Amino acid sequence: MRTIFWEDHTVRMIDQRRLPNALELLTCHAHAEVARAITDMAIRGAPAIGAAAGFGMALAAQESSARTPAGLIADLQAASALLHSARPTAVNLAWALERVMHRVNSYSGFVDVDELRRVVLQEAQKIADEDVEINLRMARHGAVLIADGDTVIHHCNTGALAVVDWGTALGVIRMAHEQGKHVHVLVDETRPRLQGSRLTAWELEQYGISYEIITDNAAGYFLKAGKVQKVFFGADRVAANGDVANKIGTYMLALAAHDNGIPAYSVVPTSTIDLSLAHGGLIPIEERDPDEVLGIQFHGEPVAPRNAKARNPAFDVTPNRLISAIVTENGIVYPPFEVGLQSAILH
Amino acid sequence: MRTIFWEDHTVRMIDQRRLPNALELLTCHAHAEVARAITDMAIRGAPAIGAAAGFGMALAAQESSARTPAGLIADLQAASALLHSARPTAVNLAWALERVMHRVNSYSGFVDVDELRRVVLQEAQKIADEDVEINLRMARHGAVLIADGDTVIHHCNTGALAVVDWGTALGVIRMAHEQGKHVHVLVDETRPRLQGSRLTAWELEQYGISYEIITDNAAGYFLKAGKVQKVFFGADRVAANGDVANKIGTYMLALAAHDNGIPAYSVVPTSTIDLSLAHGGLIPIEERDPDEVLGIQFHGEPVAPRNAKARNPAFDVTPNRLISAIVTENGIVYPPFEVGLQSAILH
Repeated sequence: MRTIFWEDHTVRMIDQRRLPNALELLTCHAHAEVARAITDMAIRGAPAIGAAAGFGMALAAQESSARTPAGLIADLQAASALLHSARPTAVNLAWALERVMHRVNSYSGFVDVDELRRVVLQEAQKIADEDVEINLRMARHGAVLIADGDTVIHHCNTGALAVVDWGTALGVIRMAHEQGKHVHVLVDETRPRLQGSRLTAWELEQYGISYEIITDNAAGYFLKAGKVQKVFFGADRVAANGDVANKIGTYMLALAAHDNGIPAYSVVPTSTIDLSLAHGGLIPIEERDPDEVLGIQFHGEPVAPRNAKARNPAFDVTPNRLISAIVTENGIVYPPFEVGLQSAILH
Repeated sequence: MRTIFWEDHTVRMIDQRRLPNALELLTCHAHAEVARAITDMAIRGAPAIGAAAGFGMALAAQESSARTPAGLIADLQAASALLHSARPTAVNLAWALERVMHRVNSYSGFVDVDELRRVVLQEAQKIADEDVEINLRMARHGAVLIADGDTVIHHCNTGALAVVDWGTALGVIRMAHEQGKHVHVLVDETRPRLQGSRLTAWELEQYGISYEIITDNAAGYFLKAGKVQKVFFGADRVAANGDVANKIGTYMLALAAHDNGIPAYSVVPTSTIDLSLAHGGLIPIEERDPDEVLGIQFHGEPVAPRNAKARNPAFDVTPNRLISAIVTENGIVYPPFEVGLQSAILH
């Protein structure tokens, strides 16, 4: 089953807030419901958010009562603005919306309004289908980085759940496993939302890949102890110079890898690369609800004093000097990233 | 109220597993109960563990039915072995046990068995009383490092709860606050046992010091953003070269501080310095129950697949190159630590 798909005039997605305890589908009938699902992280992962945005536009086209292409385009622009505001950091959201609007604009002079509605759905479907193919290509490129017997640390969730199907960084690990290499994964739990222990561990169970969960704090211990050969993560946005915005904690993990001479790899589709931003300091960083930090329970009880305050930045930026290579569907990009990333996109 | 004290022929301690939801005392009638309280972390923090070990010996002396000093010493040696095995990393445990046994041995030829029992309790009480005085001296030395208006990151709990009273690293922050300096604390939650959000936040509430809780993953974000002026933590054991074994995550935090030119300070009584170990690689690192990683709840539900495995090292070693200074009760020690730590102990 794909993470997100179109069925019966609705968008269906695995509700990732319920995993690993229940595998449930969330059904969205309107684009505003898709925007909320993105904001609330029922669906997350940069490529999956991109696919959701595309399907959200297909819902908006269906919702629109416009009788002319111009009227439909106006409705789509409003829907695009709403979907765009759902989350700020992953560039795939803007990328997918722009791709749909570009397609719509290029067809609008030649087809009637109903045909234009179909064009929106076709483009959304194409984004989703291509995502699966792109993930497989990334995985094949990246799998050469993993040697038989490697132990790797993986941050957040970058598996099938983070994309339409297969995965980015976790897709690389999965491909190495399917190629018969023995690989053991130390799964960073990834506070605050625990995508590692909740989602990545669940996926690794499905694939039969050996793993152990560790706290994010423990990554440095295992790297220093010489127990780890590679570090893998995805990205929510890569700047033109190879700075990587990714789930909070990635920067400290990459520092610890670098301090011990262990390579750290970011695995991303080229749709996650934002050449319009010269460096990572320009990437908008989302700060989320403090309740994500304060709302867990320890031994069944609250973990902080009543009324405690918290700060909750959801991403950080890892400077390019800590990134050993960036794996894309068009090949592995090594430093200097300014050149390599452009060439990967123009492929 | 002190974290641990002797009352009515028993040892009483604040049960830190119940905070911040309840302030309850645990009463131990036998040294084996003290050993269990240390292992189960009803009491934790290197200096507090040292005081607990001393009082555990006083209970052992009381429990012993020996009629001769030699018989009592044999019982105390057995009790010391049991208490010593309670936790491996904090050297204060061994330090306190050795101190009690040394005192007992030096008196044993001159006093009768009941007098010797009193000597054990006197020495335990002295360890506890001295701890409070030592903490205040550390705090006064360290407070000069904090400037008015500083924001500091603090890891784990090093407050009154980690010692008999006042605190080590948090004691420094508290002293700066009492001196009228405005200081804001970003409290690392400190997975897996959340001593930051559960204990440090609770203490800061009592002292009226401004704070916000962050995930351990977020420390790098705030350091890189230029929002933090100092990083403070304690230690469970400091090797002769200044390598610092402390709560898991300290190494990655110190790396992130160093990468941004922010000073990182370890605050310890000299009883935490172990000159017998040349470097931190020789410090034994405890690995605890995986349930500490897997046993939290997110939105009221388990955070990992049933039967998921986890690894749970409780400490890591921060190399001396990442430590800006070590604050002791005898002054602030700067690199090279080999010289300064010896001189601080011999003070």
